[in-house]
Amino acid sequence: MATHNFQPTHYHVTIGSHDPVLRIADGDTVITTTIDARGNDAADNTVAERGNPQTGPFYVEGAEPGDALAVTFDRLMPNRRRGFTGNLIAERILEPEFVRTLPPKRDVNWDVDVEQGTVTLSDPESKINGYTVPMAPMVGCFGVAPPRGQAISTATSYVNGGNMDYRGHVEGVTVYFPVATPGALFHIGDGHAVQGDGEIVGTGVEISMDVQFTARVVKNSNIVWPRTENDEYIMAFGNARPLDEALQYATTELLRWLNERYELDTESASIMLGQTIEYEIANVFDPAYTVVAKLRKSWLDRIR
Amino acid sequence: MATHNFQPTHYHVTIGSHDPVLRIADGDTVITTTIDARGNDAADNTVAERGNPQTGPFYVEGAEPGDALAVTFDRLMPNRRRGFTGNLIAERILEPEFVRTLPPKRDVNWDVDVEQGTVTLSDPESKINGYTVPMAPMVGCFGVAPPRGQAISTATSYVNGGNMDYRGHVEGVTVYFPVATPGALFHIGDGHAVQGDGEIVGTGVEISMDVQFTARVVKNSNIVWPRTENDEYIMAFGNARPLDEALQYATTELLRWLNERYELDTESASIMLGQTIEYEIANVFDPAYTVVAKLRKSWLDRIR
Amino acid sequence: MATHNFQPTHYHVTIGSHDPVLRIADGDTVITTTIDARGNDAADNTVAERGNPQTGPFYVEGAEPGDALAVTFDRLMPNRRRGFTGNLIAERILEPEFVRTLPPKRDVNWDVDVEQGTVTLSDPESKINGYTVPMAPMVGCFGVAPPRGQAISTATSYVNGGNMDYRGHVEGVTVYFPVATPGALFHIGDGHAVQGDGEIVGTGVEISMDVQFTARVVKNSNIVWPRTENDEYIMAFGNARPLDEALQYATTELLRWLNERYELDTESASIMLGQTIEYEIANVFDPAYTVVAKLRKSWLDRIR
Amino acid sequence: MATHNFQPTHYHVTIGSHDPVLRIADGDTVITTTIDARGNDAADNTVAERGNPQTGPFYVEGAEPGDALAVTFDRLMPNRRRGFTGNLIAERILEPEFVRTLPPKRDVNWDVDVEQGTVTLSDPESKINGYTVPMAPMVGCFGVAPPRGQAISTATSYVNGGNMDYRGHVEGVTVYFPVATPGALFHIGDGHAVQGDGEIVGTGVEISMDVQFTARVVKNSNIVWPRTENDEYIMAFGNARPLDEALQYATTELLRWLNERYELDTESASIMLGQTIEYEIANVFDPAYTVVAKLRKSWLDRIR
Repeated sequence: MATHNFQPTHYHVTIGSHDPVLRIADGDTVITTTIDARGNDAADNTVAERGNPQTGPFYVEGAEPGDALAVTFDRLMPNRRRGFTGNLIAERILEPEFVRTLPPKRDVNWDVDVEQGTVTLSDPESKINGYTVPMAPMVGCFGVAPPRGQAISTATSYVNGGNMDYRGHVEGVTVYFPVATPGALFHIGDGHAVQGDGEIVGTGVEISMDVQFTARVVKNSNIVWPRTENDEYIMAFGNARPLDEALQYATTELLRWLNERYELDTESASIMLGQTIEYEIANVFDPAYTVVAKLRKSWLDRIR
Repeated sequence: MATHNFQPTHYHVTIGSHDPVLRIADGDTVITTTIDARGNDAADNTVAERGNPQTGPFYVEGAEPGDALAVTFDRLMPNRRRGFTGNLIAERILEPEFVRTLPPKRDVNWDVDVEQGTVTLSDPESKINGYTVPMAPMVGCFGVAPPRGQAISTATSYVNGGNMDYRGHVEGVTVYFPVATPGALFHIGDGHAVQGDGEIVGTGVEISMDVQFTARVVKNSNIVWPRTENDEYIMAFGNARPLDEALQYATTELLRWLNERYELDTESASIMLGQTIEYEIANVFDPAYTVVAKLRKSWLDRIR
Repeated sequence: MATHNFQPTHYHVTIGSHDPVLRIADGDTVITTTIDARGNDAADNTVAERGNPQTGPFYVEGAEPGDALAVTFDRLMPNRRRGFTGNLIAERILEPEFVRTLPPKRDVNWDVDVEQGTVTLSDPESKINGYTVPMAPMVGCFGVAPPRGQAISTATSYVNGGNMDYRGHVEGVTVYFPVATPGALFHIGDGHAVQGDGEIVGTGVEISMDVQFTARVVKNSNIVWPRTENDEYIMAFGNARPLDEALQYATTELLRWLNERYELDTESASIMLGQTIEYEIANVFDPAYTVVAKLRKSWLDRIR
Repeated sequence: MATHNFQPTHYHVTIGSHDPVLRIADGDTVITTTIDARGNDAADNTVAERGNPQTGPFYVEGAEPGDALAVTFDRLMPNRRRGFTGNLIAERILEPEFVRTLPPKRDVNWDVDVEQGTVTLSDPESKINGYTVPMAPMVGCFGVAPPRGQAISTATSYVNGGNMDYRGHVEGVTVYFPVATPGALFHIGDGHAVQGDGEIVGTGVEISMDVQFTARVVKNSNIVWPRTENDEYIMAFGNARPLDEALQYATTELLRWLNERYELDTESASIMLGQTIEYEIANVFDPAYTVVAKLRKSWLDRIR
């Protein structure tokens, strides 16, 4: 269970079967950094092209197609003060007629104070300049190489993860991915100091980060879509347009999970989920939208 | 501010400009009952046709087109023990290929214990018979007469409310509706002892209820879609298919609310909502799906 | 087989169980008029409120729930010269970002010359003033009373027909509707001198019309959605949002039709339709969109 | 204007920046072959993995990002007799409840007779064995390398073309693509002897083909989505889910085309398209659906 310090020198704007930057063993930990969605690093210098450039990929020894890769986020911490967001809810998220009334688009800056744990709007033009929310760091875009030799833009997401932009991907959670290629090839980037549901302005508070994660191989998993687990919840993801279809994938993946791990048949799982399931809308901005189907673990404890 | 006791003798399966059963003054309270989604009353006798039969309508004096009607749910309490749910997640909510694997549909009974505050699966055929969740009573279908003389099926929902099936419509909340016809004509029915997000098995735990509500008229409101308020949140509703479109209506209605009540222009509201908005999926079963766009009131307090 | 001349004196902006204006026998013909979408008659006087006001309803003796009503359009002819259309493709039909570039909305007039069979833009402001297309008269909104006592806005469409806005609903076609109430209660209105696919500017060339139709009862039909037949094609309709769902209904209804009338099982019908089906997008403007699933009759002649 | 004979020795199941198999000059013609969707060649031997394996890519000299590549299909001809299709309309295209009634999936063979120009079902199990339709050869999947270094599965389509499965892509048409990388890198495969609208059984009559095409570079084009032209029509494509969104892209691209080539402003184009546009549903089976927005060229001739 080694710990690796890795300093990236180049980045990828697709998630694919790129040459690995590091080979690690099953169970190893990596300490590294990510740059922001526009390619700016901790010193706010532009070091890569825009569009969620990824650190990695990391080759995890022993991971084979048919397995799952489990990645636990041990630490996600902004490593500079300037973050930025969009200033307007995206056109596709509003009534089409309302779009006619929108002012011009621009970026606004936020001051990320790690000590205080706050994120404060720093935009003299804005009427709510100084508006402050608590920091809640998360990663928006990460995943493993997709099947069929594809290289998929970091603008979007798919069965292999990618730009899911889910505010629940914070320190302490474990994400499971279906492995499509030997070594899995894990990529990570696109940190947010905080984000609302849906990533409706097209961004969280975009920021570079110090990142630490631990990767484990789960042999012979039947996982189809990404799954996430924290102390309280199990969660299944669907990444697609429209939301209805993302929700179909997320719901069906949760059924598969309950069937495999808890031996619940479809009827029993349906009866229980009907009164207990929770949904979250992770993003409605990216080319694929993301819906999370969640179940509180305590609901499962109630089954004998 | 009178309190009226009203015992219904007939029910409606559309929400429309039906003859009022009672005329009440602005600010009055009504104590009445609702029957379950299949038309069964507190004694479990079938007294109306199935499909969310409604108690009412109640004519609220002073309500005119252009106003809003504010209805506060003072009490929502199951008034019998037998509830029932579907046994399967609806076909449209699952991956289409997965639908081929589904067993037959049937109803399952639940025991609703108001004293204990529990709801327990009472279905000897089921592998999880005896499964128990806490009671959390809510109403699924209620609203005011829609515009243009329409009479809209209680299977669905629209700008006037209707079958939104939102688990957050519990005791203590206030719902606002756009008034389309003099007296507003408020209808109510379809109680659930508990429900998960999305109403994915096509039902909550369906039950008859004792209901108490208070109605107030808000003059000259510009409300377009239903809005709900509780101690912690303001919430705007969109009722449509697909989910993407329901979300457009809900998000835009929340912007309108912030603009009217808090004088936030679109850019300021967008900047704030981008990092603070929450969405809930109320139902993905009914002909119109329902999305809730929510904002915690404490986020508004931060705007000086 | 009587022929009735009927001159309307009032109109409806919902399709519902309104008092019939005329009772006719199975097989009878009606000669009447319709007013335009804004309520203007042959003399261009406003005689009803806007929104596709309907002539009727007509009670057809012998029609009972479970039957189909077959209506043949014998004659559809504009009865005045001024028509009008919108000037812009509707916001929802364009890329959301493109909506920001749209100029203001307005109506433009067209000159409908029945003798010449032409429709000519008559709008001095327009850069293409004088643009001419051939006349191709059709009706946009018509149908029978819906189930459950509903009264449905003439803005939209449903299983009972309504505002389907299909350019193929011209003279000579026969439309079949599922009967939900005794007498079927047929309504008709919303004539267009011509229209493109999708009704993308929110209108065809809106016009008042002289109309003649013949109504027949088909006993014990299993029709779920409207069906249309002309010399060349059988066509099944789906009315819903989004288009994907309208297409599901239309395709499945065509399968049901092939099964009932031609005894084709699902596999045989699928194999044939896979290489022969045609789709049309009737409207993408109204609250429910309309998709037509069509099969050329000659493809059916090729089966044994 | 050279003509190149090229015999492929390997194939790609993504469209991306693969090493070119041949470099050709602007205006050159290529005579080559394609294998079927499952990787079977003219001798019906499996020579590649399944999923629309592509011949190419072909590097066209002079093509640069910002240009368009125009490809004319000079010849598309099946080069063996056995074709095959699916036996069932795909689950996602049917009402979800109807999916429960579907029999098992299997392939069925068709006999493709190039001399007679016929395609005949050759499946002894089938009740309509011997069913015959006219041959109408087309290509389903082709395109140029996408932007950002992506490699996109040949199961789907995007701005660069791909698996659009449009039955109108027959001999004689010219397709325009936005060039994203030097040389454009044109790929082609997935021939169908015939296909219905929507590719609803998941296939046309899949077959290997002899193919001849000519490629030209159009400098400084502003094309965003693929465009196709034949003698009668100009056509713009949108590739996305759901159909509503594919239709938005197609319609907006047609507006851009009319603006650039015919100097029609948005209002004039809208007024004309409102009464003249035609839509086709190319495919509703692939991960991205494809809608075609078409305008008959004769409608443009009427603008002086």
